[in-house]
Amino acid sequence: MSLQPVLLAGQWRAAQSTGSFRAANPATGETLPGEYPVSAWADADAALTAAGGSAAILRALPDDERAERVARFLNRFAERLEARSAEIVDLAHLETALPKKPRLADVELPRTTNQLRQAAAAALEGSWALPTIDPKINLRSILAPIGPVVVFGPNNFPFAYSGAAGGDFASAIAAGNPVIAKAHPLHPGTTRLLAEEAFAAVGEAGLPAALVQLLYHLEPESGLRLVSDPRVGAVGFTGSRAAGLRLKAAADAAGRPIYLELSSINPVVFLPGALAERGAKLAEEFAGSCLLGGGQFCTNPGLVILLAGDAAEHFIAAVKQRFDAATPPPLLSSGGQRSLGESVHALQSAGASLVTGGAPLPPPGCRYANTLLRVTGAQFLAAPDKLQTEAFGSTALLVVVRDGKEAAAVLAHLEGNLTGSLYSDTAGADEPLYRELAALLRPRVGRLLNDKMPTGVAVSPAMNHGGPYPATGHPGFTAVGMPATLRRFAMLQCYDSVRPDRLPVALRDANPNGRMWRLIDGQWSQGPCSGK
Amino acid sequence: MSLQPVLLAGQWRAAQSTGSFRAANPATGETLPGEYPVSAWADADAALTAAGGSAAILRALPDDERAERVARFLNRFAERLEARSAEIVDLAHLETALPKKPRLADVELPRTTNQLRQAAAAALEGSWALPTIDPKINLRSILAPIGPVVVFGPNNFPFAYSGAAGGDFASAIAAGNPVIAKAHPLHPGTTRLLAEEAFAAVGEAGLPAALVQLLYHLEPESGLRLVSDPRVGAVGFTGSRAAGLRLKAAADAAGRPIYLELSSINPVVFLPGALAERGAKLAEEFAGSCLLGGGQFCTNPGLVILLAGDAAEHFIAAVKQRFDAATPPPLLSSGGQRSLGESVHALQSAGASLVTGGAPLPPPGCRYANTLLRVTGAQFLAAPDKLQTEAFGSTALLVVVRDGKEAAAVLAHLEGNLTGSLYSDTAGADEPLYRELAALLRPRVGRLLNDKMPTGVAVSPAMNHGGPYPATGHPGFTAVGMPATLRRFAMLQCYDSVRPDRLPVALRDANPNGRMWRLIDGQWSQGPCSGK
Repeated sequence: MSLQPVLLAGQWRAAQSTGSFRAANPATGETLPGEYPVSAWADADAALTAAGGSAAILRALPDDERAERVARFLNRFAERLEARSAEIVDLAHLETALPKKPRLADVELPRTTNQLRQAAAAALEGSWALPTIDPKINLRSILAPIGPVVVFGPNNFPFAYSGAAGGDFASAIAAGNPVIAKAHPLHPGTTRLLAEEAFAAVGEAGLPAALVQLLYHLEPESGLRLVSDPRVGAVGFTGSRAAGLRLKAAADAAGRPIYLELSSINPVVFLPGALAERGAKLAEEFAGSCLLGGGQFCTNPGLVILLAGDAAEHFIAAVKQRFDAATPPPLLSSGGQRSLGESVHALQSAGASLVTGGAPLPPPGCRYANTLLRVTGAQFLAAPDKLQTEAFGSTALLVVVRDGKEAAAVLAHLEGNLTGSLYSDTAGADEPLYRELAALLRPRVGRLLNDKMPTGVAVSPAMNHGGPYPATGHPGFTAVGMPATLRRFAMLQCYDSVRPDRLPVALRDANPNGRMWRLIDGQWSQGPCSGK
Repeated sequence: MSLQPVLLAGQWRAAQSTGSFRAANPATGETLPGEYPVSAWADADAALTAAGGSAAILRALPDDERAERVARFLNRFAERLEARSAEIVDLAHLETALPKKPRLADVELPRTTNQLRQAAAAALEGSWALPTIDPKINLRSILAPIGPVVVFGPNNFPFAYSGAAGGDFASAIAAGNPVIAKAHPLHPGTTRLLAEEAFAAVGEAGLPAALVQLLYHLEPESGLRLVSDPRVGAVGFTGSRAAGLRLKAAADAAGRPIYLELSSINPVVFLPGALAERGAKLAEEFAGSCLLGGGQFCTNPGLVILLAGDAAEHFIAAVKQRFDAATPPPLLSSGGQRSLGESVHALQSAGASLVTGGAPLPPPGCRYANTLLRVTGAQFLAAPDKLQTEAFGSTALLVVVRDGKEAAAVLAHLEGNLTGSLYSDTAGADEPLYRELAALLRPRVGRLLNDKMPTGVAVSPAMNHGGPYPATGHPGFTAVGMPATLRRFAMLQCYDSVRPDRLPVALRDANPNGRMWRLIDGQWSQGPCSGK
């Protein structure tokens, strides 16, 4: 049977393939229609050449015109996704087993179109690029497109982090770059639909046809070669630590910036006062967050720290009850089911004992029991690395520490994480311990939460969906939150004594749209640059 | 004889050394007084532990208090350098052979104290950290100290890029981090004096004693281990490509951010109209820039592109005359003299012919003849990599191209550079070719200049002293220009629903100093955050 075409150099065309694959419905195990190519290097090579051509066209556009066109593209793409949402949601549901409602139709797709529109607004407004003018010496600088961006989407968000429609995609395009999307092989059909709409919007926006390209799958060595190619401007990757670090090594060696969003176990500390005050409510809150979406979120709370005592035991019993009562949804794949089992066993081998769960469930679907494990603080401190193994599912490890001092020791051993949460009482009894533990947790996480679970990631300029290595590759960047996300896909370009009519519009004396914030002589301003 | 002590963990103490070295006067070849240790790993290990302790103390300070203290430190340090300037300049002159006046006393030292004061002002004012508040959902984020920063200073700037006083040092401290300075072994005594004044200022500012530490030298394997240690927050390096890329590989593999400022040949294009209009003046301007400081600048113009013809030949003859007439100053070291000779030979082996120079000069001093080489465009295109070898001295390769098309082909083969200059005529005849070539040059350089030589690097917020790989490791960052330079040494920290009195002062509703720019609900503001 014929393979699905790839989107290369402005057309849907037959792949040069080294093999093929099909998606399966994780809820039933059934193989789904459509056979997709594993692209040979020739496809990646063609994509890079075409993307390089598109990047040159984009760079040659006046910056205001480029911003207008990419904004038009992003807005049109969002409208097109909405118009085709039923079909897209149906196929994503088949390929991922994620619920159509509310998850896919009411949460993730609106989030995705919202991101596209926020990216469009950021591009149009222009302040994201931090235009900076020193009028006295006629020195001006601005962040400008970095060149073709390769975006690898993850398995768990078929839309919002998709290489062909998600946050990295939107940010890279808004910054003025072409994107080579690498689909996640678990949902190739969904990615195809997204890319079809993106491609149609490209034409409507007057942008180069190779602005968006799509490859479904690559041999690992081709992936490494792709991210280290000199034609690449930057890379965005969301996925597993193992795959991400392999790509990072290749990109780093070639001097290509790569932005990774990898695994995270998102520690949650329940201080004693909070447990005493509202333990039952916290058990409900925690279980709800940990069970959400089968636990397949990068912000899933996978490590819980509690001070030993009755309140902790009540909490654990209440969580166990909720874990046992909830029916696990199908996981995204049989591979995910298998690796979740391996992670749970790794935690057990390192000393964790099962509170509940710990085994795969029978078909239909790739399911795994909601799983709670526990260790003492001393056990954790004896094997802190292994006991930070990410178990990608509705799974959490409870670390029951002797006292605040042991809690501090546990926190001091934590790797970099995306988030860290601290729950404390309202009366203030927890405050001294809060201060001590927050000081330890703060530098180890990108987002610190109070009395709140980490699973919601608001799309806000103030969000940080990032964190210290190995949660990401660089603690200064976020994968969510315009306009900061755009700056990852940009290079700093300085103009020294460049003649006025040769400057980017954003760096000329007049403020081009009267809204753009520019740093003029050290002060942020929406006005013109007057002095010389 | 006894070795000079290192500055470790708040005291000048005997190194654990694997060897020792002495500096030499490059003007005379004489060995200078003072024997300096090559530190064993134990010294680096102790420095890392002490720096980690200092980083924790700094993080624990309220952010406004931390900013005040680091600003006090930076200002006091600048004052102390000025008070001891005669001694410092004298020793730097002995160790580098750079002229006392104007270079060391009137240019580089004032530049260095200016950088320290700009860093202090940036720390106090606070906007560098891009505080961002989303009042509707109580989500707030800010750039915060990344942790201990290791700074490797280069051979060519004993003050302004020094690990113990230069731009990376000032930026890392202003961002709230301790610094482990690695001296350049060509000027250990100068670095010692700088570190003595820094250490004295630490005490005056009420900062942890290990805020500044100094190691003179390390075995290469210890250097690699140092930059990849998990206790390190980030690394700043200015120096050779070979050494920098080795450190980058080690830091990257460990997930430690490293900022490099490496080699650059800084292409200069003289368009035909400019040469016809003012060829003699351009020859003077170019020769002045290329001969400045013995050509030992990272922004030295090392590659010149000219369109073949009489004007080009007149220009070359005029430059040759100036090169021949100027007496070369001593280079920084015999090693530098040797490697300059190797680079010139590498260019010759790749097809370049000598216009003038091309040989070392006899003692006293490590000198090398001012050297001009030339190739045709076709020759360049036959060996573009080898013909981009950096020759660190008063040396330039002239590429005489047939026409604009060949000039474009040459530019399309350029590696990433710090700067690129285009000279064009005033009447506008060069404009079409300018447009074509600027489009090619722009994405390959960090700073694009018009009708200007690249050797002046103004310390301005609008400066970009950076560029695409391999000029640096990441094209989004600059090594000069507050406040952007501070952001390299920071991690993004988000506060999600954190209680008001637990927030950094900069993220509370009130604007702490009434001057700090904060992004509140998408708008830059110096006011309080009112809405909730």
